Amino acid sequence: MKYVTATYELESPGSVARGAEALAGEQSTGTFGKVAHDTDEIRARHGAWIDSLEVIGSSDRPSLPCRIQADRYERAIARISWPLENFGTSLTTLLSTVAGNLFELAELSAVRLLDLDLPSQFADTNPGPQFGATGTRAALIQSEGPMIGTIIKPCVGLSPDETADLVKTLAEAGIDFIKDDELQANGPHCPLADRVAAVMRVLHEHEAATGKRVMYAFNITDEIDTMWRNLDTLTEHGANCAMVCMSSIGISGLRAVRERSSHVIHGHRAGWGLYSRSPDIGIGFTAWQKLWRLAGADHLHVNGLGSKFTESDSIVAQSARSVQAPVFADGGPDYATMPVYSSAQTAWQVAPARDVLGNDDFIFCAGGGIQGHPDGSGAGVVALRQAAEAARDGIPVEDYAKSHRELKKALETYTRPTLEDV
Amino acid sequence: MKYVTATYELESPGSVARGAEALAGEQSTGTFGKVAHDTDEIRARHGAWIDSLEVIGSSDRPSLPCRIQADRYERAIARISWPLENFGTSLTTLLSTVAGNLFELAELSAVRLLDLDLPSQFADTNPGPQFGATGTRAALIQSEGPMIGTIIKPCVGLSPDETADLVKTLAEAGIDFIKDDELQANGPHCPLADRVAAVMRVLHEHEAATGKRVMYAFNITDEIDTMWRNLDTLTEHGANCAMVCMSSIGISGLRAVRERSSHVIHGHRAGWGLYSRSPDIGIGFTAWQKLWRLAGADHLHVNGLGSKFTESDSIVAQSARSVQAPVFADGGPDYATMPVYSSAQTAWQVAPARDVLGNDDFIFCAGGGIQGHPDGSGAGVVALRQAAEAARDGIPVEDYAKSHRELKKALETYTRPTLEDV
Repeated sequence: MKYVTATYELESPGSVARGAEALAGEQSTGTFGKVAHDTDEIRARHGAWIDSLEVIGSSDRPSLPCRIQADRYERAIARISWPLENFGTSLTTLLSTVAGNLFELAELSAVRLLDLDLPSQFADTNPGPQFGATGTRAALIQSEGPMIGTIIKPCVGLSPDETADLVKTLAEAGIDFIKDDELQANGPHCPLADRVAAVMRVLHEHEAATGKRVMYAFNITDEIDTMWRNLDTLTEHGANCAMVCMSSIGISGLRAVRERSSHVIHGHRAGWGLYSRSPDIGIGFTAWQKLWRLAGADHLHVNGLGSKFTESDSIVAQSARSVQAPVFADGGPDYATMPVYSSAQTAWQVAPARDVLGNDDFIFCAGGGIQGHPDGSGAGVVALRQAAEAARDGIPVEDYAKSHRELKKALETYTRPTLEDV
Repeated sequence: MKYVTATYELESPGSVARGAEALAGEQSTGTFGKVAHDTDEIRARHGAWIDSLEVIGSSDRPSLPCRIQADRYERAIARISWPLENFGTSLTTLLSTVAGNLFELAELSAVRLLDLDLPSQFADTNPGPQFGATGTRAALIQSEGPMIGTIIKPCVGLSPDETADLVKTLAEAGIDFIKDDELQANGPHCPLADRVAAVMRVLHEHEAATGKRVMYAFNITDEIDTMWRNLDTLTEHGANCAMVCMSSIGISGLRAVRERSSHVIHGHRAGWGLYSRSPDIGIGFTAWQKLWRLAGADHLHVNGLGSKFTESDSIVAQSARSVQAPVFADGGPDYATMPVYSSAQTAWQVAPARDVLGNDDFIFCAGGGIQGHPDGSGAGVVALRQAAEAARDGIPVEDYAKSHRELKKALETYTRPTLEDV
């Protein structure tokens, strides 16, 4: 496969074919006015082309403000392809190409990049996840079930010692995975190096006493040189997971972390709503997650079903499935990652979350959903594991709760969310 | 000043006060459900607060899809502040805070970050532009007038030698500045190292023969390690400017380039429309450009007046002014950058572009507007310089054209754009 195909939802003033052509031109050989070197040969070798254009509707008003006006605005799904020769297998130039100036074209009154069909040549220069689900299980010495995780709360304000105290409680509760909040990186009130030292002391003691290893995702997000120093700090203290806020460091920032990391990389998508929220502009998660996987994320956040955020359950389900699906359109390595469910998750959402995937290779993060259990965090974790057993065995959670006290109390404590059919 | 203030345009189902509170909570100490360590003391020390909330309208429909429904959706300008202690002067954590999860909140049916008031403490850890306008003029040995620039076209397809041939023509035409297209980084058909060698050979010969130095912005956009190698390649060949596609490499990518660069950094904003296009979600340029300046951009693209893109002239004018305005809310270094006008620019737009700023510290890029001049690129450049002289002296361009042949022909050749009053 010697080309990349991008799928867009487009809307244009007048004919959407004109919009698709403007996009293909702007993002390959097109220019304003004819210039000397703009030959037919170059257009043939480097021009983008429209594979297909399926009109899906029209309206009498533009969805986004648009300098070109028309009586009718036509909407379509367009598939547009570029020769690989234009950008090779560079993720950054791919991004400038499929998600560059096109968002500003006056020939488009809506434009969303929905998906990318990438050839497996990208694997030659992009390493993909170092660990994925298998490596995460190995690091945790845990072979069964989903990872039950939680988040340090409040997001900001705890000192390193206070954080470590909370980690001790959570480790004793039997948790598999704990993460820093995305707002907590290396603030003056809780320096990362001190936090790593304090937390890892607790976790090493816990492992020595119980044989149970907990994964802690330290938020190392920062400038590139600093992130590399942060990775050294993690290594020094025997930590096993680095979290990064992907939108804050960019694709090349993630890739730089991956290059020097011997840790599982937990990809947080703070800021994701900017790309996803509007039906008229942005990038769909199916497209976006492929870039982050190529750059090296092992875990990717996908929100939770019935979460506090506005994303619909069907999008969350599709996102969770997408990160486990093969990354390339033509074979090659899978580069599968672990989806991370989070945001207002409780025992009610475990079975639906598993059903979306049909397997246990996911992380289920609950904050209040564990720490708010009336019998304490220990019972909170047990309740989630019981919910996961029930899901695995296909037993309705309320039936399983009859013989499992912690789960029963969790279901009584947390409001049953209304979930969409996904 | 010990805090950061962000200005948002918000819309909420029901009362917008509830939306602003949800934002302030989510992005500081808030959590789903009460947890043990969420004390009043932590809220007082680390909580974000609402400075002001000015309702500007309401509607009976949400602007963006929103899980929470209401009869009325209220819109407001909100100013929200965070203690500096939460993130110190880290740009990446600032970004995760002021432009993080908030875009996904169901309590908001529209959210745009419009501006950031940053304290000058950020200068302690963020270097800002190394050159700016003064350094750019020094590198060019040019003390007067705006920089007249152009772009290699077609965007992709020329070999290194073909590029160098075109550069020779443009240098002989008297151009000040040439840039790679954002689609042309290090593709297999035009490897960067070969292009740098071929182009710089031409430019050195030109300087030796004429005493005139041209600035060429080589698109070094790539993975971090590769960008650093690319900078070495530039140094080796005596190049003076590195272009990066900012959205493709992220804030920390730009900062990494700045750390190791002895070159002027030309910031291209391919992909900008994703942030700017919708009135209901995104980031305003006034806010965004401050981050890029702190990270080290010397030049920043702002589109052109009457351009081929959809951004209105008033936004372009505001953007151009913003990059020259002081970056901090409380003094400190200015970190002023040069605005770069581009996209379908001709002699008609020179005076309006200058009038927006009231000075000549800008780059005026024209592709077809130079290379399409009927008497060739040389006359095209001369015409733009004549237009700049007229603008500086306050003479209407059509009057000046009466005694300036190249300008006269340019005005006859290019359609006069209809510009907004800015």
